[in-house]
Amino acid sequence: MSLNLIAPEEFAARHDRARSLMRRAGLDGLLLTTPADICYFTGFLTRFWESPTRPWFLIVPVQGPTVAVIPQIGAALMRTCAVGQIRTWRAPDLEDDGTSLLQDTLIDSIGAGGRVGVPSGHETHLRMPLHDWSQLRSAPVDFRGDAGVVRTLRMTKSTAEIELIRATCAVADRAFARVPSIARAGDRLSDVFRRFQMLGLEEGADWVPYLAGAAGQGGYADVISPATDEPLMPGDVLMLDTGLIRRGYFCDFDRNYSVGAPTSEIAEAHRTLIAATEAGRAICRPGNSAADIFHAMDKVLTGGAGGADVGRYGHGLGLQLTEAPSLMPMDATELTEGMVLTLEPSLVFGPDRMMVHEENIVITADGAHYLSSRAGDDLLVLDT
Amino acid sequence: MSLNLIAPEEFAARHDRARSLMRRAGLDGLLLTTPADICYFTGFLTRFWESPTRPWFLIVPVQGPTVAVIPQIGAALMRTCAVGQIRTWRAPDLEDDGTSLLQDTLIDSIGAGGRVGVPSGHETHLRMPLHDWSQLRSAPVDFRGDAGVVRTLRMTKSTAEIELIRATCAVADRAFARVPSIARAGDRLSDVFRRFQMLGLEEGADWVPYLAGAAGQGGYADVISPATDEPLMPGDVLMLDTGLIRRGYFCDFDRNYSVGAPTSEIAEAHRTLIAATEAGRAICRPGNSAADIFHAMDKVLTGGAGGADVGRYGHGLGLQLTEAPSLMPMDATELTEGMVLTLEPSLVFGPDRMMVHEENIVITADGAHYLSSRAGDDLLVLDT
Repeated sequence: MSLNLIAPEEFAARHDRARSLMRRAGLDGLLLTTPADICYFTGFLTRFWESPTRPWFLIVPVQGPTVAVIPQIGAALMRTCAVGQIRTWRAPDLEDDGTSLLQDTLIDSIGAGGRVGVPSGHETHLRMPLHDWSQLRSAPVDFRGDAGVVRTLRMTKSTAEIELIRATCAVADRAFARVPSIARAGDRLSDVFRRFQMLGLEEGADWVPYLAGAAGQGGYADVISPATDEPLMPGDVLMLDTGLIRRGYFCDFDRNYSVGAPTSEIAEAHRTLIAATEAGRAICRPGNSAADIFHAMDKVLTGGAGGADVGRYGHGLGLQLTEAPSLMPMDATELTEGMVLTLEPSLVFGPDRMMVHEENIVITADGAHYLSSRAGDDLLVLDT
Repeated sequence: MSLNLIAPEEFAARHDRARSLMRRAGLDGLLLTTPADICYFTGFLTRFWESPTRPWFLIVPVQGPTVAVIPQIGAALMRTCAVGQIRTWRAPDLEDDGTSLLQDTLIDSIGAGGRVGVPSGHETHLRMPLHDWSQLRSAPVDFRGDAGVVRTLRMTKSTAEIELIRATCAVADRAFARVPSIARAGDRLSDVFRRFQMLGLEEGADWVPYLAGAAGQGGYADVISPATDEPLMPGDVLMLDTGLIRRGYFCDFDRNYSVGAPTSEIAEAHRTLIAATEAGRAICRPGNSAADIFHAMDKVLTGGAGGADVGRYGHGLGLQLTEAPSLMPMDATELTEGMVLTLEPSLVFGPDRMMVHEENIVITADGAHYLSSRAGDDLLVLDT
């Protein structure tokens, strides 16, 4: 059993689905390099990815065993994972950091002339040095994009994955419920951020990869800045947006708070954000598209003007904080049962004043259900 | 003033050094895509990088202003940073996620035919989709490796950077000192990990990007696995290795603890690790090489047999948990004043038993000084 509690049979099923999609796409195998893609197929879960020094590789051939080609330092952990073979080299190696071993293994595993799909589309990157990539390409195989195979696989979550995300959401819910005890007028935003992360851990997060937020009079300027040392002031709107991890799976939602009673403008804005979230959730069912959700929310938010600079009103989540699809006009992805999404409406009041709300949902045959505990219509109030 | 307290003049000096190195390497500019590289030149500090969805770009031309080509969502924060121009697009865009804007900007900024250096060597990666990269390459400029310019720049730290790393090390030191209050026989390793992260935050970390460690009878099997729910047992050796961040800069060191009194084998192993660290530090001075440090430590650890599967005995650190150089035989990098390094000796006792120790140092004209508070010779003991 892997550390994220996914059963061996589920990994086998993921490999089977991958093979079927690969055959349809005319691929003989996949080459994967990123934490989430490798974890998806093997359960390999480690914070060691924080070190950019060493490349790691997983080959998923359309026939035969999955092969990890990895630094020796990761062999003990990889042996506990869902993988058929492990080949290691002593990394780092400044002259040949796994490249020739990977070339040989690709030929053994996929065969000379084989078509090797490498995730290359939107939201992907190749986690290896460009110089090594150009060396690798001298291998006698046909590297090409993965035709969206990995995106397609990961976008629909299994029952086990949904329950893991639900459990992570519950951790964040408990932490958010305790914010009034850690954030009052006069508290520095940087300290509120520290304390919120401590609450997340105390409530059961394994780690806190993401916390953003802001505070400002009648709204905030920005949703990605780190905390400043400025104190909370009466009249501030405080937003905390967190991506906690438990057993490898993320939540991603936020809560807004008013320091002291909110103005009627802010109270109303919050109600509009909640209404937009509900409008989005109401049409989240198999057959509708990601764009449909955007338009349903945008109608409530802007009367249909087309959204704000944030660029979208939500996205997928799972092994990553943000995953496909994107809730925006140009994303025609059809919703399917098992998709886990964030609904993330935003409102802009002025050049430096905005508000964002976010919830997490899962799509089922009979519509969408909240995984986060839907916020109330009324903005939460913190002590002054 | 940026959020990591680096002064505007220092950013200007970094750009000047970059231009001088570019000229020497025959480059007309740099194209940067990763959090650490972009932060190094601008002070742009955000946890939003956790989302893999959007690419971000920085162009540092050999003449003229630095230009950020970024998603609109980051414009407010980038305006507070050390950058000459900002161009934005509304990301995500499934058809053209900044690629054509970046092409146009490269031509405006560096000029058609210009030689654009992209970090491509060891420990780098390109943070954008491969598909977009191949589109981008149709621009009439000459993309090539950066000839190690960025590595060279970042490897030597300024006084301000050294003081920031020293402050982060002090946070971890205070957290490690409190481990006896959060880890006793019977405590689950996963809870010890959670509590340690809370201590790090309470002592002043902005966030905790990295915590690894392990516990095992007479040593541990592995240094990269996440925590299990197994309880600590008398006779276990517990190791906690953390990379905290404060104001954008990492520490990276560990501490070992014995649950109850250690066996003489383990007590002796710990003394050997400390002696190896000291042997490494003793020869850390300008003019010696990264390989020299390895050999000095390896003489103490293995009698000169050549090290273990971890692959090296330490590395650089700063904006990233691990940076150049690597303390290993094939890294001939000459040590210079201002380098910040980890010294990380390891000993292997058996197939599933090892110990690792780690300290952080800075190299000055008159030798190396500890930034972490050097551990004592005797292993720390936790209550049973």
